[in-house]
Amino acid sequence: MAKEITPRSEDYSQWYLDIVHKARMADNSPVRGCMVIKPHGFAVWEKMRDALDAMFKETGHVNAYFPLFIPKSFLSREAAHVEGFAKECAVVTHYRLKNDPNGGGVVVDPEAKLEEELIVRPTSETIIWDTYKDWIQSYRDLPILINQWANVVRWEMRTRPFLRTAEFLWQEGHTAHATSEEAVKETRMILDVYAKFAEEFMAMPVIKGLKSENERFAGAVDTYCIEALMQDGKALQAGTSHFLGQNFAKAFDVLFLNKENQQEHVWATSWGVSTRLVGGLIMTHSDDDGLVLPPKLAPIQVVIVPIPKPFPNLIEVAEKIAADLRVKGVSVKIDADEQNRPGFKFAEYEMIGVPVRLGLGQRDLDAGQIEVARRDTKEKTSVPIDTIADHVAQLLDDIQNNLFERARAYRDAHITEANTWEAFEELIETKGGFVSAHWDGTTETEVAIKEKTKATLRCIPLDAKEEAGKCILTGKPSARRVLFAKAY
Amino acid sequence: MAKEITPRSEDYSQWYLDIVHKARMADNSPVRGCMVIKPHGFAVWEKMRDALDAMFKETGHVNAYFPLFIPKSFLSREAAHVEGFAKECAVVTHYRLKNDPNGGGVVVDPEAKLEEELIVRPTSETIIWDTYKDWIQSYRDLPILINQWANVVRWEMRTRPFLRTAEFLWQEGHTAHATSEEAVKETRMILDVYAKFAEEFMAMPVIKGLKSENERFAGAVDTYCIEALMQDGKALQAGTSHFLGQNFAKAFDVLFLNKENQQEHVWATSWGVSTRLVGGLIMTHSDDDGLVLPPKLAPIQVVIVPIPKPFPNLIEVAEKIAADLRVKGVSVKIDADEQNRPGFKFAEYEMIGVPVRLGLGQRDLDAGQIEVARRDTKEKTSVPIDTIADHVAQLLDDIQNNLFERARAYRDAHITEANTWEAFEELIETKGGFVSAHWDGTTETEVAIKEKTKATLRCIPLDAKEEAGKCILTGKPSARRVLFAKAY
Repeated sequence: MAKEITPRSEDYSQWYLDIVHKARMADNSPVRGCMVIKPHGFAVWEKMRDALDAMFKETGHVNAYFPLFIPKSFLSREAAHVEGFAKECAVVTHYRLKNDPNGGGVVVDPEAKLEEELIVRPTSETIIWDTYKDWIQSYRDLPILINQWANVVRWEMRTRPFLRTAEFLWQEGHTAHATSEEAVKETRMILDVYAKFAEEFMAMPVIKGLKSENERFAGAVDTYCIEALMQDGKALQAGTSHFLGQNFAKAFDVLFLNKENQQEHVWATSWGVSTRLVGGLIMTHSDDDGLVLPPKLAPIQVVIVPIPKPFPNLIEVAEKIAADLRVKGVSVKIDADEQNRPGFKFAEYEMIGVPVRLGLGQRDLDAGQIEVARRDTKEKTSVPIDTIADHVAQLLDDIQNNLFERARAYRDAHITEANTWEAFEELIETKGGFVSAHWDGTTETEVAIKEKTKATLRCIPLDAKEEAGKCILTGKPSARRVLFAKAY
Repeated sequence: MAKEITPRSEDYSQWYLDIVHKARMADNSPVRGCMVIKPHGFAVWEKMRDALDAMFKETGHVNAYFPLFIPKSFLSREAAHVEGFAKECAVVTHYRLKNDPNGGGVVVDPEAKLEEELIVRPTSETIIWDTYKDWIQSYRDLPILINQWANVVRWEMRTRPFLRTAEFLWQEGHTAHATSEEAVKETRMILDVYAKFAEEFMAMPVIKGLKSENERFAGAVDTYCIEALMQDGKALQAGTSHFLGQNFAKAFDVLFLNKENQQEHVWATSWGVSTRLVGGLIMTHSDDDGLVLPPKLAPIQVVIVPIPKPFPNLIEVAEKIAADLRVKGVSVKIDADEQNRPGFKFAEYEMIGVPVRLGLGQRDLDAGQIEVARRDTKEKTSVPIDTIADHVAQLLDDIQNNLFERARAYRDAHITEANTWEAFEELIETKGGFVSAHWDGTTETEVAIKEKTKATLRCIPLDAKEEAGKCILTGKPSARRVLFAKAY
């Protein structure tokens, strides 16, 4: 089974695709760039969604749902937004099919042409701010703290499952505030929620930072991001939170009467994470034997495999252990299938990333023991059967922590300072990871660096120290280091 | 507040729209036929979704996600399906916009025309069965029991919020089986799940039945349905479960090796309920003062309103009651806003359908009492404060049951037998509701009845007694009564 996966050392990109397919996370579809999210992949996304949704609700947000379609003219209303988003979109031009008069199935009915084309939402700022206009009159209507779970479409030319797909699933928060300060606070608070989720649930360490002007969301005043590092040394933007200022309120005429009884444009934020996180999760932890999942996001946390056959008394013991674990909130599967051999099953559960496997043999049972195998380190231990539930509950916590610490150690070992252009180029080309370097603050330099090295400016870390230095490329003065990396 | 709602007796249709808007369930959107589901409406849908999702999972189903777009040619593969579904669809013909060279915003880039048009899914049988082809080789791959929560688009000409919208949210189950018997069993089991959900959660009594050939889903062998009755005597199809036979397997070449080692086409079912249920929920229980929600689906089950002002000690008592209720799993809001008067708040919570309101005044408190108002009957009682949590928990159960019994009494009083054509016409025209009558079993007669009376054949009830009779229109022989009604 493990042999079916291309080793990371051989071809990291193919390794990723192998994991996606063999761990049954997603399939290609007949629609270019769109994937089918298979039950195992969707179960992981559901766990991510539910955890995030609870965090959004705890911070006062509510869910709503806005239309899939956006009138074409809406995209032109915010000048920067149209430049960034109105390009690669799915465009609906007609609303009816009819039988082909020549008998060739169905054809588009030319008489059913829309007066104005509809765009399948690439993001929903425009239609949401058009709606908020009707909802907001006074400061008493603010803040509006709405989130939406939805599908969006961006007609990407080069796609990869989860990481970049034409259609993807995401959440998009769109909030409206009476003051700039409150909107900035919201933007930063959500960034903290994202970072907490990435680290505590995904066991994926992230760096919180600010995007440069060049990498900013189309229509934003400031874009904050969390950046993670994959095992091949490439960065992944894992989530963004935008302070939109009054840009969309101005574009859609959304005014409110403030406490001083004056008309003012509303202040906005938007923020989102997507199924791309599933790709980040896969690439952060998995190995050459298959998927590795942090226990908090594993659809099945523990599998119990009776060996060599599910003798009735083994099943009985397995059921008892499963019941004890379920009381502790652990999800358990007992695999009592008699057709597949244990070795086949072990490889299968390794492949799909079940964090803990319990092998239950008659000999072990006679000795009052049970074999515990952990997916992250592949370690196997024998544990007394009467303490197994406590042991496994603790082990799941340990695995969650170990995955995070392992990923953080890798990430920390791959943040390297460069102080000369030669060192910078060499680091980007050979070691990879984040390269911490001085930059003169201009888009021109940023673009030049990208052209020379393919590295992009990932972010200006929020915790960057003030440190006078010289730009790595131009030698012009710089006040702090920023992070560059090749990225997904 | 209540005056803002058009009474049902005056204009039922306007009453419904008033409730939808004033109870903040949904708004119109700038996209024709698409609605914005507002936070309160979406919270109700979330509760419905979560309850259904748990029921699907308990019965062995898993969730997955398939593409939004369907290649146009797929729709032509199943002959009956294309007739029923390939007509009023949103058609994507282009994948790029560009800046208008004349400066008028953005225009569709004529060079970015798709080779084959994509249809925004009106339902997903075709793309899912095209995918299942790759997933199924042998009987060991079966059954596949997959559900999807998704948005779908049908270009309806006359729309009403929730009841009929161009885009709507739904779940669609798509299962694959090795035998006809197993697929039929699944179809019926899901019908039972739908009926149980409608009655136990929505408090909406339903009749389980079989659709006539004329009303069958496009591509199905049999369509089962649950039919509910609204307060204006019109029926609402609330959910359907289809036995698809081997139709889609044949259209998409999905074969499997059965236990006898022979190639056979796979057997299929599909089933769905949608945000239409929210419309049914509104119309089943609400009154001229606003929305009425069954406690199991109410986002806020209890509101506590301190009167006349939130004196600190009142708030303290309210917090204590809320904590006691939350321990019992009850969702509680305390409205300590000092700007709005209690009367305003009372009308507001009546409008949005909070099942129980607790009015907490200093005088009551001194007497050790609290005022309890139930939304369904408008009754108010004084309850000793030290038993309030138990009282309210019981009251929520009582309200849930009362709403169901009230709706069932109305429904049962509106199933009337007709034995002559004159009686049938009169019942449909004046009393409304379900008219139980004999029918000769032909589509011709069914269509004629619809043309004469606007009543449609809702279903052949599963519990219909065998009873020889004569067709209400043609006098031809009939073996059992079926139900007719005007419908949404």
